[in-house]
Amino acid sequence: MIDPQEVPRFAGVASFMRMPHTHDLDDCDADAAFLGIPFDDATTYRPGARFGPRAVREASTLLKPYNPVTETSLQEYVLVDHGDAPVIPGYIEDTFEEIQARVAYVLAHDVVPAIAGGDHSTTLPVLRAIADEYGPVSLVQFDAHSDLWTEYFGKDHNHGTTVHTAIKEGLIEPETSIRIGDRGGLYSQEDIDLMDDSGVKYYTTEEAISKNLNDIGQRIRERVDEPVFATIDIDVVDPAYAPGTGTPMPGGFTSREILRLTRELHGVNLIGFDLVEVAPPYDNRAGTTSILAANIMFEALCAALDK
Amino acid sequence: MIDPQEVPRFAGVASFMRMPHTHDLDDCDADAAFLGIPFDDATTYRPGARFGPRAVREASTLLKPYNPVTETSLQEYVLVDHGDAPVIPGYIEDTFEEIQARVAYVLAHDVVPAIAGGDHSTTLPVLRAIADEYGPVSLVQFDAHSDLWTEYFGKDHNHGTTVHTAIKEGLIEPETSIRIGDRGGLYSQEDIDLMDDSGVKYYTTEEAISKNLNDIGQRIRERVDEPVFATIDIDVVDPAYAPGTGTPMPGGFTSREILRLTRELHGVNLIGFDLVEVAPPYDNRAGTTSILAANIMFEALCAALDK
Amino acid sequence: MIDPQEVPRFAGVASFMRMPHTHDLDDCDADAAFLGIPFDDATTYRPGARFGPRAVREASTLLKPYNPVTETSLQEYVLVDHGDAPVIPGYIEDTFEEIQARVAYVLAHDVVPAIAGGDHSTTLPVLRAIADEYGPVSLVQFDAHSDLWTEYFGKDHNHGTTVHTAIKEGLIEPETSIRIGDRGGLYSQEDIDLMDDSGVKYYTTEEAISKNLNDIGQRIRERVDEPVFATIDIDVVDPAYAPGTGTPMPGGFTSREILRLTRELHGVNLIGFDLVEVAPPYDNRAGTTSILAANIMFEALCAALDK
Amino acid sequence: MIDPQEVPRFAGVASFMRMPHTHDLDDCDADAAFLGIPFDDATTYRPGARFGPRAVREASTLLKPYNPVTETSLQEYVLVDHGDAPVIPGYIEDTFEEIQARVAYVLAHDVVPAIAGGDHSTTLPVLRAIADEYGPVSLVQFDAHSDLWTEYFGKDHNHGTTVHTAIKEGLIEPETSIRIGDRGGLYSQEDIDLMDDSGVKYYTTEEAISKNLNDIGQRIRERVDEPVFATIDIDVVDPAYAPGTGTPMPGGFTSREILRLTRELHGVNLIGFDLVEVAPPYDNRAGTTSILAANIMFEALCAALDK
Amino acid sequence: MIDPQEVPRFAGVASFMRMPHTHDLDDCDADAAFLGIPFDDATTYRPGARFGPRAVREASTLLKPYNPVTETSLQEYVLVDHGDAPVIPGYIEDTFEEIQARVAYVLAHDVVPAIAGGDHSTTLPVLRAIADEYGPVSLVQFDAHSDLWTEYFGKDHNHGTTVHTAIKEGLIEPETSIRIGDRGGLYSQEDIDLMDDSGVKYYTTEEAISKNLNDIGQRIRERVDEPVFATIDIDVVDPAYAPGTGTPMPGGFTSREILRLTRELHGVNLIGFDLVEVAPPYDNRAGTTSILAANIMFEALCAALDK
Amino acid sequence: MIDPQEVPRFAGVASFMRMPHTHDLDDCDADAAFLGIPFDDATTYRPGARFGPRAVREASTLLKPYNPVTETSLQEYVLVDHGDAPVIPGYIEDTFEEIQARVAYVLAHDVVPAIAGGDHSTTLPVLRAIADEYGPVSLVQFDAHSDLWTEYFGKDHNHGTTVHTAIKEGLIEPETSIRIGDRGGLYSQEDIDLMDDSGVKYYTTEEAISKNLNDIGQRIRERVDEPVFATIDIDVVDPAYAPGTGTPMPGGFTSREILRLTRELHGVNLIGFDLVEVAPPYDNRAGTTSILAANIMFEALCAALDK
Repeated sequence: MIDPQEVPRFAGVASFMRMPHTHDLDDCDADAAFLGIPFDDATTYRPGARFGPRAVREASTLLKPYNPVTETSLQEYVLVDHGDAPVIPGYIEDTFEEIQARVAYVLAHDVVPAIAGGDHSTTLPVLRAIADEYGPVSLVQFDAHSDLWTEYFGKDHNHGTTVHTAIKEGLIEPETSIRIGDRGGLYSQEDIDLMDDSGVKYYTTEEAISKNLNDIGQRIRERVDEPVFATIDIDVVDPAYAPGTGTPMPGGFTSREILRLTRELHGVNLIGFDLVEVAPPYDNRAGTTSILAANIMFEALCAALDK
Repeated sequence: MIDPQEVPRFAGVASFMRMPHTHDLDDCDADAAFLGIPFDDATTYRPGARFGPRAVREASTLLKPYNPVTETSLQEYVLVDHGDAPVIPGYIEDTFEEIQARVAYVLAHDVVPAIAGGDHSTTLPVLRAIADEYGPVSLVQFDAHSDLWTEYFGKDHNHGTTVHTAIKEGLIEPETSIRIGDRGGLYSQEDIDLMDDSGVKYYTTEEAISKNLNDIGQRIRERVDEPVFATIDIDVVDPAYAPGTGTPMPGGFTSREILRLTRELHGVNLIGFDLVEVAPPYDNRAGTTSILAANIMFEALCAALDK
Repeated sequence: MIDPQEVPRFAGVASFMRMPHTHDLDDCDADAAFLGIPFDDATTYRPGARFGPRAVREASTLLKPYNPVTETSLQEYVLVDHGDAPVIPGYIEDTFEEIQARVAYVLAHDVVPAIAGGDHSTTLPVLRAIADEYGPVSLVQFDAHSDLWTEYFGKDHNHGTTVHTAIKEGLIEPETSIRIGDRGGLYSQEDIDLMDDSGVKYYTTEEAISKNLNDIGQRIRERVDEPVFATIDIDVVDPAYAPGTGTPMPGGFTSREILRLTRELHGVNLIGFDLVEVAPPYDNRAGTTSILAANIMFEALCAALDK
Repeated sequence: MIDPQEVPRFAGVASFMRMPHTHDLDDCDADAAFLGIPFDDATTYRPGARFGPRAVREASTLLKPYNPVTETSLQEYVLVDHGDAPVIPGYIEDTFEEIQARVAYVLAHDVVPAIAGGDHSTTLPVLRAIADEYGPVSLVQFDAHSDLWTEYFGKDHNHGTTVHTAIKEGLIEPETSIRIGDRGGLYSQEDIDLMDDSGVKYYTTEEAISKNLNDIGQRIRERVDEPVFATIDIDVVDPAYAPGTGTPMPGGFTSREILRLTRELHGVNLIGFDLVEVAPPYDNRAGTTSILAANIMFEALCAALDK
Repeated sequence: MIDPQEVPRFAGVASFMRMPHTHDLDDCDADAAFLGIPFDDATTYRPGARFGPRAVREASTLLKPYNPVTETSLQEYVLVDHGDAPVIPGYIEDTFEEIQARVAYVLAHDVVPAIAGGDHSTTLPVLRAIADEYGPVSLVQFDAHSDLWTEYFGKDHNHGTTVHTAIKEGLIEPETSIRIGDRGGLYSQEDIDLMDDSGVKYYTTEEAISKNLNDIGQRIRERVDEPVFATIDIDVVDPAYAPGTGTPMPGGFTSREILRLTRELHGVNLIGFDLVEVAPPYDNRAGTTSILAANIMFEALCAALDK
Repeated sequence: MIDPQEVPRFAGVASFMRMPHTHDLDDCDADAAFLGIPFDDATTYRPGARFGPRAVREASTLLKPYNPVTETSLQEYVLVDHGDAPVIPGYIEDTFEEIQARVAYVLAHDVVPAIAGGDHSTTLPVLRAIADEYGPVSLVQFDAHSDLWTEYFGKDHNHGTTVHTAIKEGLIEPETSIRIGDRGGLYSQEDIDLMDDSGVKYYTTEEAISKNLNDIGQRIRERVDEPVFATIDIDVVDPAYAPGTGTPMPGGFTSREILRLTRELHGVNLIGFDLVEVAPPYDNRAGTTSILAANIMFEALCAALDK
């Protein structure tokens, strides 16, 4: 990490936290690698998440390495920026293969993947690589939507079908998985049935708030079995805090709440995570969505490395 | 409503919730009609609310029809987009006549008007039509401002005099009316006197929060007599959540709070409502003000239809 | 068309030029139909063109029906807004089938298609429908890029391969086709070879300007054989005039120049046209890209109908 | 004028060119006074011009006082910022009286009014004051629209009826008046008839460009009789150069062209001018519309004072 | 203050609250003076705070003079807009001298300085002038950052070293000073040591929220000794509420919370205050950061004058 | 350079043209190096140019390597991204030393510096390093302003004094130097005198256009002696094409004109160049200023390498 006391944080090439950029993980002995997945073809409303990785990198140059709440210092770990997975615009299934291969490469080097999407469809190939390495995992999902649709537009793959397919393919164990943040309108009562039938435990935003977030943290830690993969859809946050996303829904968490929730992942065996659906073309000019996303990734990195 | 599983929500002509668009209510047997009132000449600061209806329509294409909290499905009702009332830029009093006539037409067809303003002056002709049909009604007003000025710039009509005139003309019953959300500076102690003398019960934002919103809901339901008209000025919400409005005032409700408050209208005899002061030229690029407005209208529609 | 002297142009549902909106062309005896194609998965840089149709519709409410230069009045023709073709995010080839079917439906009713994209990949299924109806046509292409790539990312379809594939499939006749507006960097000299080998005549922006646009109009009219389809990529215009596009390239035409060029299509047998690559998320807040696009479509409509 | 070598131009209260701000013209012996008219209720599309004066003031802090082309130095004259005319939102005719009175006050002090609108309706009361003082004047109008409508929405006053009413009331002499910049669609051939019948000489944008702007300058000077009032609608400029306006129309003049045209007013007896329709809510974030407007006003001021 | 019932708040030259603008405090018998410090050279990330004073002035035209919570009326006091301190871009130490001189001038006239920055480095010369007049003061700091760095980039002065230097120079008494709002990452554990060693009492945002803001107000009032200077860094607020700032950090106070905290300053002997780090180029288009800043200054003014 | 046929141009870390990023020039045998200078403290109006290098890097990912007009392929050369020079916010003279040292390092490796500013003050230390290596050089300056002020705010260094100081220090030879693009207001006739006395030949924008740009190219090539350094201030371009700059002035070159002018540098012995004053916070959301800047740098690189 470049010394920000010598070179201002607005200077230089914007890799994640200004970490070294390398496509080759053989020699670097990394503990964790930032990986971008710039794919947004499977969104049902606003595109732009293909620029999520670039925007999160830029925002991350503001991050400092020491977490005073958890007393974690990222300077004790080797972090690299592993670039972006190649993607093929217009071809979702071919793209999935590329993504899965790249994540498998990271895992093969025993490196924690810290992934920035991309729309939420991209979590499926990530989970395929994860399950190849670890078997079925517990999923912690922070999200305004369940992503449990069985199909969309007559097709299997879409940013709304990811978790359904992951369960169907045996990539995650629903009975040790949990989702926080549901809210907003649905198509019909059947959507509730899909959620109930999935086996994934969930708390709506209103339930989570009324229970108190400490308590929710406790419930997450009790629910999951190791290993754990966390998938954070930025739309779990309210559009006031994260306007730059594909399907914004009012009534979400505040920044304090999501940072607190992410911090509650300390204590689980977090083997990787992704943060998806940051759509920079719709962000405000200050880029607050990307800045929040970078800070959430910082908290998740602390949880994944300091255990 | 177009099936969003077949045609993505970003596609097609942007009528409200992609409902059929018709100027003729004779044959459609509608339960409720979206009506735009694109007039903003009476604002005391920022104009732009004339584009409110168009922006809310566009944002509404993201809405889904089932409300999981109230278990209301809008698919059980006939909704239409009734277009916009004609307006005459620069001529407030002539415009009022046009608005009143159009709302009267909707009411004559026994259709619930779901109105998108326009600045808050436009609520006066709406209430004239309402009172013609129902006699004086109870008004539930969510608003940062009382709109109880007796005149402005030496004239009767303005977005700050609406409620004063409505009381004076006998359109609403102040003793069964209630206002939630006052905050911010006033001109003088006389403004407080106007509020106290009006007979309308009110709770400031701070009072509403400290009392807890459930309780406020209870008080609303106890206060009003049937029938009830609700007028929601988007500036009751904090500018972080609704920057696109004419006279923004910090310290307002969050999106969770206003959605909750609106949901508390279930149980009153809501015969119509308007949502005013959405000024798209000042919204952020994600259009979060319009998206929030569309979601508030969804909650109000559920309350008006599902009773 | 709604009378703008009675209802201001900012009022009402934003269909194209506020024309009637219908999915059914059987009864309306239309001369021309606006059709949106909201697909942008095949872009190589910035997405957002899926919102092109919606933005052009909104901008078109400012258009007036009489063209004083050509003395064409659109009020003499029946125009409808035919909505958008259904598309399937993430599945380019399935989407192409949907597009082709919808355009075929329009042509089957002897209606001139006035199409708003969408990225430039969508012109391929449009041309398939056109060629099914008319056989190979002359293509007039206003574009900063040749779109003559043989493949991209190892795949056939992309917004950069459209014209190559159209020639390969025999949808257009290169020897009666012409392209105006090439500029900017290429990958290598081979790109020039592809252009020269294609058989399509072309003039770079600099050549077109130095020759004078009247003269270019003359050359277009001499080159083409009937019938003619025009495809206008908004990136032929300079980013100062059209910032809202997927792959902006400085040095393009001004608004005066592109309006003039489009007007030069009067006199050819124009049987339809599309205007593609308007990406509203990247437009400026005044929406000048969409406004220009609407005006170009107005000129093209005049050329297609008044012959 | 504050010395920009001592106090940077971004500092201090933003009066016009950082000139002294005074409501009282009795003692200041001013040669010219900047006057804002913050009224935009009479626009037929986008509002916002009420913030035109404020935005032009802010942009004007970048201006320098010496014009190297005309060798005019504004430092040789006394300039003041006379504030804004009072206006009454929603009441166009009452507002006109306020405007007329304020302009009359300026003229009574033998001060050149340099006016920033406001929408183009506000030119009517300005001309009433001018004609009261000088009798009918020659009008030089730079505008994309003729503003010769006889009525709009069934009413006399609107930003599209200004010149018609001015002629009807005998405020200007059409046969010594001239308009430059017409372009874009009209409602019908009747609009052309209105223009021809008005008696005002006009050149469309295309005609002006093809003739060459020097020549147009010559024609202006030959046409007008003294005294001359100039009214500059910023929409005469292309939206690429002036996106922040109410009814943008592509195909307009560039900044070089409008600055040149304004400079051609040197040599006529210019007794005042207004620059209207700058709508800051639609300007880009750099405020280029306001900056251009401030520079046009600078050129017009040089022409009015240095004769 | 101009009567907003006669002249709308969008009209006229934008001085603070439309108060008279004067560089000369000799004759005006002012109680308080707004002073801008347009300097942002010492920021470590985003510049733009040089336009803070101008933006706060513009936003302040929306303020009304009566505070219904504290029952303070600013109309009982004489307020002036004292313009901006001169600054020298690129020369921080020379600029400090200019600022100090100007604040000293204000204090010499027994006028309460209500200062709008500028970046947080500018508080140092302000405190130098304050200490010259009053001796060491108690500092109340609302801020996401401690600003206790001992140096930055090898230099003494920077927006992160202000409070360290103020303590070192004896301008403030750390043992009667207090800071509210710390949050986010640090460089290392040493940063915590600097905070603990400084002697300044502090509460992080999380601590302040969990304790309840009333209680924090009580602790502030107990901690400070008279006289008190308050320095409010807008970044103490969450970026959702204040995106326009130099080093945004998620997880901050809401607008309700900061307005409440500022109001808690009633009861201390507040002899002046500054509000810094408003960076308008990064604000959203509605200017909500500036509007919030203006409202915070209004609350602070009430606290400083009404005691 | 990454193969854009395999990895889309929106993917990966945004180094200049996605070239390898290295701080060490010893081993890479580079022909040219991109170097950022993120300093903007010396601007007299709008800051933000510190983010110029980052924005130009991002925009450059759209560039393709082959120039069809000059038939230059950048793939035949070794290009690297050399990161940014360290800078010290608030300390202009110390920053100059850092910049000079870094440029000297580049030159010592016989590498062409392709520099992105930063404000125009940063050209002074660049020229110091250049002159150390080459002796006094010919300067080709594309700029709206002469930058010949002798001091500003009583100080030597500022973005308006660069060329004056460069002449005074003997870094450039005025009699073989040339400036194109002057326009807009000045402080007084003395400014003209400074220009005339400087010895630098100059053509205003109007003169350059009326002479025709080919001819201007010829005059540049005749004027300069080798070696040549080119300094391009983006404000030479009109704000419609480059809104994102510190002191925008209407009436400038179009994108076609500046690209053409830059291309005219082919044939001179160009040993380096800088492009300054790109201020991304003021750019439009499409980033057209940065995109234009990247394309100008592409043309200049072709001229510098292909000779």
